[in-house]
Amino acid sequence: MTEGLQKILHEEIPLTREMGIKVVAHDEGSLTLSAPLEPNINHKRTAFGGSLYSVSVLSGWGLIYLVLNRQELNGHIVIQESNTRFLAPVSSEIIATSSFDSQEQLEQFLQMYRRKGIARIQLSSSIESMNRPAVSFSGRYVVHS
Amino acid sequence: MTEGLQKILHEEIPLTREMGIKVVAHDEGSLTLSAPLEPNINHKRTAFGGSLYSVSVLSGWGLIYLVLNRQELNGHIVIQESNTRFLAPVSSEIIATSSFDSQEQLEQFLQMYRRKGIARIQLSSSIESMNRPAVSFSGRYVVHS
Repeated sequence: MTEGLQKILHEEIPLTREMGIKVVAHDEGSLTLSAPLEPNINHKRTAFGGSLYSVSVLSGWGLIYLVLNRQELNGHIVIQESNTRFLAPVSSEIIATSSFDSQEQLEQFLQMYRRKGIARIQLSSSIESMNRPAVSFSGRYVVHS
Repeated sequence: MTEGLQKILHEEIPLTREMGIKVVAHDEGSLTLSAPLEPNINHKRTAFGGSLYSVSVLSGWGLIYLVLNRQELNGHIVIQESNTRFLAPVSSEIIATSSFDSQEQLEQFLQMYRRKGIARIQLSSSIESMNRPAVSFSGRYVVHS
């Protein structure tokens, strides 16, 4: 299923190929994406903020995509609003993990979507560098049928 | 001066070349960047959120860069925190304009930077689509010597 997600990202959002985004790990409650530093580098030889943002927002997008797939649901997933804090520079591979707050949050979201055909969900994503928090992302996504 | 900025973006943040980012217009209080839709497209044939974010954050970064240059000041410009609202899809060229709130905001920022060697500034950037607001970005940047 994660191979399918990586294929979809690369085929349908061509910039993710240039960025070298890969699906690294997935379980029911989280998704981890990575991207090598080199194609995402900035003038300070650390990761470009736009790349850090892209990997973060796609980790949330992909997590919702995989959850819907597992439930055999279709839907359009759109980012509505996001807040991003850049806490430290990232000077190695970008690794972003998005996760649900709780099993309850996931279940309420799915219940709402099944009932109304539209549902919103707030997801957090984080990137570490040198074992310390580097990027803290929070995004509100809307899914509609 | 704007040609210099475009060269710096393309040379030092290689992803901006892949995205096709161009410097479109600049006056003392604002900077406009553009990027064609095609390399920034997503699965819905509209602009990828990560690309919209990148053009937005760089319009603010570039505006500060040009202001410092004009004042013959050097400094490292870093994005610290941002809030981004996606109001409507963008289905044509991405055009992002960043601007200072006021002349006073700019002057206070420069005064603080000259005095302390570090200063923060909050900049807004917006992208329109079909003459309606599509992306509303607000970023806090820190500049340090």
